[in-house]
Amino acid sequence: MPEDFPHDLAFSAAERAAVYRVILSRRDCRRFLPEPLPEPLVLRLLAAAHHAPSVGFMQPWNFLLIRSVEVKGRVKAAFERANVRAAALFPGDRGDHYRALKLEGIIESPLNLCVTCDRSRQGPIILGRTAQPDMDLYSSVCAVQNLWLAARAEGVGVGWVSIIDPEDLRAILGLPDAVVPIAYLCLGRVAAFPAVPELQTLGWLERTDLAPLIFEDRWGMPARLDPGPPG
Amino acid sequence: MPEDFPHDLAFSAAERAAVYRVILSRRDCRRFLPEPLPEPLVLRLLAAAHHAPSVGFMQPWNFLLIRSVEVKGRVKAAFERANVRAAALFPGDRGDHYRALKLEGIIESPLNLCVTCDRSRQGPIILGRTAQPDMDLYSSVCAVQNLWLAARAEGVGVGWVSIIDPEDLRAILGLPDAVVPIAYLCLGRVAAFPAVPELQTLGWLERTDLAPLIFEDRWGMPARLDPGPPG
Repeated sequence: MPEDFPHDLAFSAAERAAVYRVILSRRDCRRFLPEPLPEPLVLRLLAAAHHAPSVGFMQPWNFLLIRSVEVKGRVKAAFERANVRAAALFPGDRGDHYRALKLEGIIESPLNLCVTCDRSRQGPIILGRTAQPDMDLYSSVCAVQNLWLAARAEGVGVGWVSIIDPEDLRAILGLPDAVVPIAYLCLGRVAAFPAVPELQTLGWLERTDLAPLIFEDRWGMPARLDPGPPG
Repeated sequence: MPEDFPHDLAFSAAERAAVYRVILSRRDCRRFLPEPLPEPLVLRLLAAAHHAPSVGFMQPWNFLLIRSVEVKGRVKAAFERANVRAAALFPGDRGDHYRALKLEGIIESPLNLCVTCDRSRQGPIILGRTAQPDMDLYSSVCAVQNLWLAARAEGVGVGWVSIIDPEDLRAILGLPDAVVPIAYLCLGRVAAFPAVPELQTLGWLERTDLAPLIFEDRWGMPARLDPGPPG
């Protein structure tokens, strides 16, 4: 992985635009093309994840690549169990709507990836984790987001499947007690990156306006910013 | 915020390079220049955060901008209390090393920002959070990482200050019970983005090799990838 990027120079306008483009056009993908992902590409995505911020430079993550049909089948079965339980929580029409959604692409995607957090990495006392013990979990989440953005720039779709009991993942993947599964991801080429999230297109929820989410100095105090015209 | 980026077209090689550049050159910053950040720039950063992935499209985040000298002073005092407790956990020379580190820029930075997670947003049952209840917290972490990367592209430094008791933040910022403080950030222009993390330069920890962190199909099984030459 190249480490010789210019670290200390300003980004050009074109580079800034590319960064905003990747942030705005990243999508949660559930439909994948079967072609395998080249190994150098997979390694670039993992290197992007590995360069996430981590509390006290702990780097608590591991990356489990899952291609085995048998392992994928066990994960898919765990998803099905959790999804039946989840569907029962949504009443009436909302339950019907939920059951009609496609929420994973475990089998179809050429590569599954579990990003974990080893809470014992670098010993028991970690700089920056002493007052906020979940900071190591958050570091692994930052690794997921780095990978997701790099994947979008590479034309690779990523879907985060969270409808799985973590204890099922622990058993299937043989995770030690100190290791927490943070994200189970499906990766692969996709036919399209939709302009808006699928849950918005299908009427599940709308994108919230940003301006009312911004406060100043205290919860509930409107910010002294001019957010410009809505939208 | 422009929503009219090309969503469905491939990224050019130059765009991909910009995405990797921002990921590799992002740094945790603790030294800031005093010049204020223009409001349109701050809004671009918040829009980047607002376009993070969120579980069930929940968008659980809020953004508290902190510029008040009085509020910053209370947060700094909370940091000092937590930092004294933290320093005592590191034995001998390691404790001396810890005490010599600059770990925050709360007062000097022109803007502090608390990113939160409202666990009650969109009601009690959230698509994708039913089996993994912390997914909403992770969504707000993804928002932090989006903002951090956008800031780097804008030449703005960000530092995540996690050495604060969350209950102190709750009291100082008046957060409701359902709202969790995820990240307390310092933002501002910086004189430089160092080539490597400061904790590495100062000998606190080294960057881990990536290859041994990659497994295949089960924890501990070496991946069938050729990671190429080390480094």
